[in-house]
Amino acid sequence: MSSILVVGSVALDSVKTPAGETHEALGGSAVYFSLAARLFAPVHLVGVVGKDFPSEHRACLKNRGIDIEGLEVQAGKTFRWSGSYSRTMNTAKTLDTKLNVFESFKPKLSHSHKSSPVAFLANIDPELQWEVLSQMTGPAVVACDTMNFWISLKKPALKELLSRVDVFFVNEEEARKLSGESNNFRAAKRLAQWGPSVIVIKKGEHGAMLWANHKLYAFPAFPLEDVADPTGAGDTFAGGFLGYLASSGPLDGSLDPARLKRAMLYGTVLASFNVEDFSTRRLERLEHPEVHGRFREFVDLLAVEERVGVLAG
Amino acid sequence: MSSILVVGSVALDSVKTPAGETHEALGGSAVYFSLAARLFAPVHLVGVVGKDFPSEHRACLKNRGIDIEGLEVQAGKTFRWSGSYSRTMNTAKTLDTKLNVFESFKPKLSHSHKSSPVAFLANIDPELQWEVLSQMTGPAVVACDTMNFWISLKKPALKELLSRVDVFFVNEEEARKLSGESNNFRAAKRLAQWGPSVIVIKKGEHGAMLWANHKLYAFPAFPLEDVADPTGAGDTFAGGFLGYLASSGPLDGSLDPARLKRAMLYGTVLASFNVEDFSTRRLERLEHPEVHGRFREFVDLLAVEERVGVLAG
Repeated sequence: MSSILVVGSVALDSVKTPAGETHEALGGSAVYFSLAARLFAPVHLVGVVGKDFPSEHRACLKNRGIDIEGLEVQAGKTFRWSGSYSRTMNTAKTLDTKLNVFESFKPKLSHSHKSSPVAFLANIDPELQWEVLSQMTGPAVVACDTMNFWISLKKPALKELLSRVDVFFVNEEEARKLSGESNNFRAAKRLAQWGPSVIVIKKGEHGAMLWANHKLYAFPAFPLEDVADPTGAGDTFAGGFLGYLASSGPLDGSLDPARLKRAMLYGTVLASFNVEDFSTRRLERLEHPEVHGRFREFVDLLAVEERVGVLAG
Repeated sequence: MSSILVVGSVALDSVKTPAGETHEALGGSAVYFSLAARLFAPVHLVGVVGKDFPSEHRACLKNRGIDIEGLEVQAGKTFRWSGSYSRTMNTAKTLDTKLNVFESFKPKLSHSHKSSPVAFLANIDPELQWEVLSQMTGPAVVACDTMNFWISLKKPALKELLSRVDVFFVNEEEARKLSGESNNFRAAKRLAQWGPSVIVIKKGEHGAMLWANHKLYAFPAFPLEDVADPTGAGDTFAGGFLGYLASSGPLDGSLDPARLKRAMLYGTVLASFNVEDFSTRRLERLEHPEVHGRFREFVDLLAVEERVGVLAG
């Protein structure tokens, strides 16, 4: 069982969807990631909040076994994001972003955090992601995420970072923009040339694709009848994916596709739970039997017996 | 082995995509469907063309074992469609439609066609689809497609038709419009209440979903590095799907999900071949070993060993 270090945002989100709304609820990439990954492996969260960060949110993370020694408290206010989703729940429309203390976030890893075997660098400035990575003493698996903003603004820094990354999580639209390829197969192939041997292209309700071993695998999302709030689905996916990897054997050498495919399904399953309720509520009350149950259900949904039909001559 | 009757358009298509273009090439829903389904079962094509329909196109269909006794020749010109696709190849932009002889198409089934055990009513006026169905002597499986145009213009007729349909092929956008539901799960559930026990929601490059046995199954598209021309992918999918069903055992009683899932994969595989070349070229030269090879490859891509990882306590 390897432990996982995650560096990213801790936020207070105000979200409106056709199913309802929240006001200053627990959010942020590092939070969603941690609440998913903690079901698989020990998680160390590194981030920053302001003095206004509610103590019940700290307790929420701590009570679920997440190490928040690396959650700095700074004078000032916690990062706030507000957004809304339209009827199809496809993409968030950002209404307001207040970086607050997150603007000057300079993560400094403690001695014990530096040696984490798995690192997830959530969506922050690629120069900062590089900085964090440079503090570490050779993690076995380095994973990162990014966003359109950095692709537009800091593409060279991002490319440099990717040369040190093993697993790259990226949205379909971002993958196309970054690679300059409009086809996912070619986009993944191109991005893999820059460093990461594993690329995960996230497609929201349309599922996710896995580039591994010079091959592209595709998986659908887990079909849901009711979606309450898609916020955090991508980071939750990454938490399930890396959590499973960290919990399922040694990390030295290359990861075999069978194991990576199971990681894709765990990522998908965790994301499917997350969107069933607002903020982190569903992840907070999520238990192992539910995770395994839906994983098995998903395997069954996808399973096809390879019985070749009689074809016409 | 059951034979399949298909009623739909036979067209001359002029298509422009980022990969090239064609001028008045063989096309039409009944043509794509037939060229896919003929690899599995005997196909009877019912349609109409003008006197200008090239004899090599007739030969192309006939030489591949497709029965074109029901392909009427009328005075006038063949249906022509022209369209273009942008870089992502997602949706066709129609540049011009000339219905020509197709405008007054009144399919009249011959004695032998009336007793076909499987019927595919491709995208035509739902009143005409109903009319065709009324000529038939109790097919075991009735399938149909439709389009936005009929959903807007003839929704009551379409709903009436669906009460007699077993398998409904529909695009995601159309399913949402017709059902009034923005979630695919609820859209499929609603449409199934109107009659069809099986719903296939087509999502283009994002794959397809299957509603069967009160459950929603999701499958990705087969990942391709190069797409030349997406025209006809939906009808080709239906041809592979229904072709497999017709070739894989008795059609009485309800179809079991395992068989329907294989049909989904054959539909996906046939569609993946179709988009690799312009017009019907790839389907024309498609052979059984390629179909089975890619089917097995697809089964392997999707297969996940159900090995539950050790989770953190």
